[in-house]
Formats: sequence, structure tokens, C-alpha cells
Amino acid sequence: MKLYNYWRSSCSWRVRIALNLKGLAYEYVPVHLVKDGGEQHSEAYRALNPMRTVPTLELTEGGRVRHLSQSLAILEYLEERHPSPALLPADPYARARCRMLAELVNSGIQPLQNLSVLQRIKGEFKGDDKAWCAYWIDRGLTAFQAAVQETAGTYCLGDTVSFADICLVPQLYGARRFGVDLGPYEVLTRIEAACARLPAFQAAHADRQPDAVPA
Amino acid sequence: MKLYNYWRSSCSWRVRIALNLKGLAYEYVPVHLVKDGGEQHSEAYRALNPMRTVPTLELTEGGRVRHLSQSLAILEYLEERHPSPALLPADPYARARCRMLAELVNSGIQPLQNLSVLQRIKGEFKGDDKAWCAYWIDRGLTAFQAAVQETAGTYCLGDTVSFADICLVPQLYGARRFGVDLGPYEVLTRIEAACARLPAFQAAHADRQPDAVPA
Repeated sequence: MKLYNYWRSSCSWRVRIALNLKGLAYEYVPVHLVKDGGEQHSEAYRALNPMRTVPTLELTEGGRVRHLSQSLAILEYLEERHPSPALLPADPYARARCRMLAELVNSGIQPLQNLSVLQRIKGEFKGDDKAWCAYWIDRGLTAFQAAVQETAGTYCLGDTVSFADICLVPQLYGARRFGVDLGPYEVLTRIEAACARLPAFQAAHADRQPDAVPA
Repeated sequence: MKLYNYWRSSCSWRVRIALNLKGLAYEYVPVHLVKDGGEQHSEAYRALNPMRTVPTLELTEGGRVRHLSQSLAILEYLEERHPSPALLPADPYARARCRMLAELVNSGIQPLQNLSVLQRIKGEFKGDDKAWCAYWIDRGLTAFQAAVQETAGTYCLGDTVSFADICLVPQLYGARRFGVDLGPYEVLTRIEAACARLPAFQAAHADRQPDAVPA
């Protein structure tokens, strides 16, 4: 498999964690989201991913090379094709809680801090893009911390890593980047610290990717 | 089950379609998103859904009343608890394509036309909220139409209704509301017309809900 992705993209990061947890090797193909106006807008990349987002997973199905985008759709695919270790609980209600937490980040926070959105906030409205992001992240993390209480153990869903942790960890990195005070989020930073002890999370970290330009 | 929801909310609408398709009865509990500053912000509602969004599904699991939010997490839950009729294809790759299309709407378009976002665009930046929405919808539908080509039949995934159709139909209503020209989206409006012939879609339509205030 090939993963078209970008070091700091939280959606890319989620898929890297899942691939690592499942022990699946992949080729890292960097897509620079800023250089030359953004490589994701090239004709070649749009043919793989018409939404021009990262990540895109290249895989082979039925003897044909195929492309999948949308990080949660990719996580579900990996879970179905490579069920072990499971990254969703077994019980339907627990699975729903897990997916709910994952979506709280995936649709509730991340789309509002997306590069294309920030470019319009800054360019069109001369707005403070960092404050814009911080507002949505703070609001989302408050809800996440309230919602995770029902199931939290070492990780978001008891003592097993799941989609919820995979979405939470890159979002907390984004929170710091946009200046959010993580003081009130003790439950979340405790879970983050537990994840940070796992080699799969360490290897997926933004700053360790081949295209990383850490501050 | 009870569904806390709002007639025009596209995320609420998705869950109504799925409940109808699966023949599951539910009590309709309206949550007025605008009146009195928004009923979703009340303390009582926040206890059910800390993100203060609609819909919230109230259900019973293990003899306890529970609450689920995030429409795609709810759809997955309904699919697992009530598998027939299936709203996801059987094959893992086809399921991934289906979820990818659903996410293209769920995380790629809808979060940017959310009421709370429009309030900031209009209030803080004095921006044109309708034009803001139209931009993201147009961009997302262009990608959706390109991506759906691989699988489109009568519906998004061949000739069986799926999550992708459930997300597409309410989004097209939103597109018209925000002034998007749907002329270029012939494939999508053809699928929409096929869905509109199904009683489950008809009964879930925004304008037919008890709290509807159609234009």
C-alpha cells in the first residue's frame, strides 16, 4: 500500500497510527499542502482524490489499483480487511460510542481547522485564523471530555486502543499548535500520554515523518 | 427510541431516513436550533449531547437509557443492531467507497454550513454566509460526483440504497437553500430523484416534519 499524506495533517496521522497498530507496511508518499500553491491541487492528485485532501490510500483490490480517501472510511476498511488487533470494541453500543468520539473530532473539529478553510478566513475576511481554530477546538474538546467519561480507562474506550484515541492524539497536537490551553483537559492529556508510550503512535507522530519541518 | 432532532438539520434527516428504511418506530422530539438562542444549548440537552448538536438518539442498552450523537455513528449502530435491510454493501472495498462518499458530505461539506459556523461568519466577520456555504457545497459536490462514477447505478452504490444516498439527499436540499446551481450535477440529481420515489425518503423529508416551517 501507498499512503499519500502530509506530516502535519491530522487525518493523515490517524491512518499512519492505524497502519502501524495493525503492523501493515506502506510506502510514504508526501503531498506538500503548501508548496507551489499545494500539490493536492495538481491534476495527477485530483485523479486519485477529487476532494484534493490528504490522506489517500492506494491499495490493490480484485487485481486493480484503487484509491480511498476520508480517514475514517480508511480506518473502517483497514479494520474489516485486517481485523487484528481490533481498533473498535466488539459490542455494538460500545462501537457506537467509539465512533461517536471519533466523529466528534472528524466532523466536529477538524473540518474547521482545515487549511482550505483557514485560507478563506484569513484571505477573505482578514480574520485571525489561529483564534478561529482555537475556538472550535476548545468547544470540541470540552464536548469530547464530557462524552468520554462514560467509557474512559487507560484509553478512551477502557484499556484498549481504538479509533477514538487515533483521532484524539493528532487533534491535541493541533490544539497546542493553535494555542489552546490544555489545562482543563486532564482526562484527554492523560489518555494522550498513555498512547505516546506505544511504538505505533510514536512512529506515526507528525514530527517524525520524512517530510516534517518541525518548528 | 426517541430522536431529538430538527426538521431542516441534514444530520437529523439522515437518521430519519435510516430509521424509516429499517422500519424502526421512533418518537420525534423537536429541538429548535434558533428559538430562545437555540434549545440545543440548554442544560438539559447538553446532558444528553455535550456537543450541543442534533440529532441525538435515545435508546435502551443493557436495561439503561443511553444517548448517541453524531449521525454516522448512529447509522453504523443501527446497521449493526438492525442489519436488515443492509445500508452498507457486503464487500469491504465497496463498503469503504460507500463510507468515503458519506464522509465527503459528513466531514467535507456539512460542518462548514453548520449553524454555529454561519453565526460566526456573519456575526464576527460580517461575511455573506450564503456565499460561504455555496462555495463549500459546490466544491464538495464536484468531488462527490467525480468519486461516485466508480460505483453509481440507480443509487450511489449500484442499485441498493446506502449511507451514501442517505447523506447525499439532505445535502442537495441544503445546496438549493444556499443557492447552488445544481445544473452540473446531473448524476447526483438523478440519484436524488430515484431516492425521492421511496416512501422512507419521502417520510423523512425536512418539510414533512412536525416542526417544519417551509419557506
